[in-house]
Amino acid sequence: MYNDEYYMRLALDVAKAGIGQTSPNPAVGAVVVNGGMIVGLGAHLKAGEPHAEVHAIRMAGEKARGATVYVTLEPCSHYGKTPPCADLLIEAGVRRVVVATTDPNPLVAGKGIDKLRRAGIDVDVGILKEEADELNRMFFHYIVTKTPFVTIKYACSLDGKIATATGESKWITSNAAREDVHRLRAQHDAILVGVNTVMADNPKLTVRIGEQRKNPLRIILDTNLHTPLDAHVVADKEAETWIITGNGVGREKMKAYERLGVRIVPMASARVDVGDVLRLLGEQRVTSLFVEGGSRVHDSFLRTGAVNEVVAYMAPKLIGGREAPTPIGGFGFSRLAEAMELDIRRVETVGPDIKIVAVPKRRGRA
Amino acid sequence: MYNDEYYMRLALDVAKAGIGQTSPNPAVGAVVVNGGMIVGLGAHLKAGEPHAEVHAIRMAGEKARGATVYVTLEPCSHYGKTPPCADLLIEAGVRRVVVATTDPNPLVAGKGIDKLRRAGIDVDVGILKEEADELNRMFFHYIVTKTPFVTIKYACSLDGKIATATGESKWITSNAAREDVHRLRAQHDAILVGVNTVMADNPKLTVRIGEQRKNPLRIILDTNLHTPLDAHVVADKEAETWIITGNGVGREKMKAYERLGVRIVPMASARVDVGDVLRLLGEQRVTSLFVEGGSRVHDSFLRTGAVNEVVAYMAPKLIGGREAPTPIGGFGFSRLAEAMELDIRRVETVGPDIKIVAVPKRRGRA
Repeated sequence: MYNDEYYMRLALDVAKAGIGQTSPNPAVGAVVVNGGMIVGLGAHLKAGEPHAEVHAIRMAGEKARGATVYVTLEPCSHYGKTPPCADLLIEAGVRRVVVATTDPNPLVAGKGIDKLRRAGIDVDVGILKEEADELNRMFFHYIVTKTPFVTIKYACSLDGKIATATGESKWITSNAAREDVHRLRAQHDAILVGVNTVMADNPKLTVRIGEQRKNPLRIILDTNLHTPLDAHVVADKEAETWIITGNGVGREKMKAYERLGVRIVPMASARVDVGDVLRLLGEQRVTSLFVEGGSRVHDSFLRTGAVNEVVAYMAPKLIGGREAPTPIGGFGFSRLAEAMELDIRRVETVGPDIKIVAVPKRRGRA
Repeated sequence: MYNDEYYMRLALDVAKAGIGQTSPNPAVGAVVVNGGMIVGLGAHLKAGEPHAEVHAIRMAGEKARGATVYVTLEPCSHYGKTPPCADLLIEAGVRRVVVATTDPNPLVAGKGIDKLRRAGIDVDVGILKEEADELNRMFFHYIVTKTPFVTIKYACSLDGKIATATGESKWITSNAAREDVHRLRAQHDAILVGVNTVMADNPKLTVRIGEQRKNPLRIILDTNLHTPLDAHVVADKEAETWIITGNGVGREKMKAYERLGVRIVPMASARVDVGDVLRLLGEQRVTSLFVEGGSRVHDSFLRTGAVNEVVAYMAPKLIGGREAPTPIGGFGFSRLAEAMELDIRRVETVGPDIKIVAVPKRRGRA
């Protein structure tokens, strides 16, 4: 029972403390074991604050000497906002380091492990790698691609309708499902919707569960700058809002929004291209994006191939109607062979509703 | 362990042998226990053939005397195609009878139990009642309403599309899901589709799994008799086919179909009404109907309130497209408050696909 996997699972559980609050850093956990006893543990909780290893080694104190350290992500070897954790582990005199997964960050990328090994520390890599990669899938995606990890979310009836044919959509899913959406919002750097969703639903796009916390950035795709000035996202000041437009919007028009504290971000082209938006957001250190529709926006992301995770909530009801809107509109894929194939990760119930989490299948992968 | 529930569960398992082959009778199982030993068991396997109790008592022979009999449905007390089972149990000298659920058939309805009790036999009723009612939900519905139990089935993508915007639909779901559909077809007396589905997909609507068996009746809703004469359902003679039309179809036109062995059933009105169809099918002893679309037919059944079970297969893929068709088309419910609320019964995986079985929520029931 008290084996490497046991301690690494504990380190992963500890790491979860940081989920949604370490961006642009990954969530990391560390456990220090000496003589069969856990003598220290730590998590990275906020960018700029100590890494998981620092907390854990501090807690262990003198007992770090000769200990084994379990850490969910390769210790860093470079000077960032804090000194390198590899150096810390060496100085503390640990005997062995067990790493779940290596850091895809090119500034680290195996260098942390090399440094430990050169100092005579035993290093084992890959224990619960899959879970550790899953934990930081958003961070890893961002580090490798320099664009945000994109989660597409929708809520529909069992027959795939997001509203009735007359447009009534409040509420198809339950309170429990909507609370779950707020948890997911909190785990992303930014929330994105199209202007049609703002006009139809006037959403707040804030996190309204638990204690007051910093809300994610709100992003509106609005080619011609039609977002109403009295929309919640413009007027309520509950969170930062950026409106991304095409290049045809006049300076005067922008000012009205800017006076309300909203940032207008004109793209270089007349139409807003999803790929361009993702590159821009990546440059602005938005590491994860929660896309909440509408159906044309979902279609744009789908067709760009810019989807990393799909979260679907399905209410146990049938709405029907040929004209009733569906989660993904626009043009869609005209041939079945082009459809976006998914791997189902989880099917669970949230209150009376069904929640399905899926990721795009990597073609050619086993 | 060897208690009433244990033996009744065994009787329910035995009863399952008859599922899909006893219509218009229910599937029933019986177990005879004497001195702690199982001395007989039986299932009703086919209408006109012996009831479960008859097989079980025969198997028990002399050991039926003083035994306890577990039977999933109240023993019959009337002369039908076979003599009353209540009389048989009395003559065999059983001491106690345990019944899962009473027979809603007005010809039986508690009379079998009364008869046993008057003969001095101990009778307990209600052990695993819920499971027994579920087992014969189709039969019970038919007996009470005189109309068939209706199962609506559809297969769609995770975003609720049954085809691409260009109409490509073969195949959205997997082989495994399609095999599962064949199993469900086998459990219904009849399969129903609209003429649009016949024209678009030219389905065979037969059971193509396992050994050759009698195929369910095929029913086409076709107001103006447009079903092509060379469609599988007309030409292949693999199963009986009825085409239900409005009252405006000429006699000559019908004859071409009748020559091919297809029965044309004109309704009294110009448009085909789902309620009328169900009453007609009930009169013709069709106890269960498997409705496989298309989306307008599903809408008609939904709006008539004539849905007893919904089986949805969802493929792990996204198709998108505002014009891509969805499982339930037509007008749908224009207000959310009118949507058909469901209770989810099962969520399971069939190959890579998700299968959801749901039943309409009974309003006002706990």
